[in-house]
Amino acid sequence: MSRPLLQLALDHTELNAALLSVEALKESVDIIEAGTILCISEGLNAVRTLRKVCPNHTLVADLKVADAGETLAEQAFGAGANWMTVICAAPIATVAKAHSVAQKYQGEVQIELFGRWTLEDARAWRDIGVKQAIYHRGRDAQASGQSWSKEDLNNMAALAELGIALSVTGGITPADLHLFKDIPVHAFIAGRALSDAAEPARIAEAFHQQISAIWGNK
Amino acid sequence: MSRPLLQLALDHTELNAALLSVEALKESVDIIEAGTILCISEGLNAVRTLRKVCPNHTLVADLKVADAGETLAEQAFGAGANWMTVICAAPIATVAKAHSVAQKYQGEVQIELFGRWTLEDARAWRDIGVKQAIYHRGRDAQASGQSWSKEDLNNMAALAELGIALSVTGGITPADLHLFKDIPVHAFIAGRALSDAAEPARIAEAFHQQISAIWGNK
Repeated sequence: MSRPLLQLALDHTELNAALLSVEALKESVDIIEAGTILCISEGLNAVRTLRKVCPNHTLVADLKVADAGETLAEQAFGAGANWMTVICAAPIATVAKAHSVAQKYQGEVQIELFGRWTLEDARAWRDIGVKQAIYHRGRDAQASGQSWSKEDLNNMAALAELGIALSVTGGITPADLHLFKDIPVHAFIAGRALSDAAEPARIAEAFHQQISAIWGNK
Repeated sequence: MSRPLLQLALDHTELNAALLSVEALKESVDIIEAGTILCISEGLNAVRTLRKVCPNHTLVADLKVADAGETLAEQAFGAGANWMTVICAAPIATVAKAHSVAQKYQGEVQIELFGRWTLEDARAWRDIGVKQAIYHRGRDAQASGQSWSKEDLNNMAALAELGIALSVTGGITPADLHLFKDIPVHAFIAGRALSDAAEPARIAEAFHQQISAIWGNK
């Protein structure tokens, strides 16, 4: 298994606060995400600004697109995103249109897994050409005490077997990483665990140390 | 059945273009919606601006919230929205948090129905206190030729029986309204059918005439 990447999710309501986190963390993370809260609060100007500040990072627009796949993909990739999220509840026609625009920009669509979805859906996404999904323990689900379960891990393994690269998110800390040791995780996404830390770069380092200890250095 | 309302969905990528539609149509519609495309392109500044321009209209922030229900509801209702959409795939904890913030602002959550959902889900939303849902023929599904079906109409009737007020959207024109004559529709949502018309106010009038012909004037 190759070494999972570390993704910083920026879920600030103000761009200036997000940029402070980026300044503190951009040397310590592989992927920068303009989170849904930031995109909705500040619009795609957030993505354009992050593209300027981080010209060489992979940049994700976490729009959780449910409809209007073509227009929103043109907006997101045109603003400089490399990856854009589409919610699993979106009609397959929306996924296909978003993927088609993504390809034009040499970008990728990531399916955000929330609520009801099936492996049949996952095969349909893969057959369209989608290569990535995000396995999500929702922020509110997490706050209400819902933890990572055996079922989560089995679902992740089944998606990985379909050839889908998985990013994992939902209140993850370095101490949680061992739970995923048998899954070929593509990226771990952390938001407040990094941004809200007293010493953000030190927490990022703890993520990398745990990743190396579990998955090795390659 | 009471007379359905008419909602203008603004799905422009630029606020200025949306404001031109509002100018042409605000006297002809009951509800103004800041569509997902507009909210993502321009951020919540779009909602704040529409609140100023239309101080007395019901104003919808179509955010299709999937997570972070509390934060996004604070942002949307704080910006002046009366109603905010939450996608059906959202965890029930997200729906509950969004609804709780909505109540604080005397606003309402609307569940946007996309993809897989069940009447059991609908009962759970209702039991939390959610009173509205949006029955949606997706823009991309519509473009790929998917039409309103008997199954759609049966689903709408079942939701209405649960006491959920339904808004209906997806490429609707005045000529389509008769399809819904047996459903207690709360509002019809039209976007490009109104905005892109050569004479927008005349199309709005055609909607109202059809609504009166089918549901009466009360």
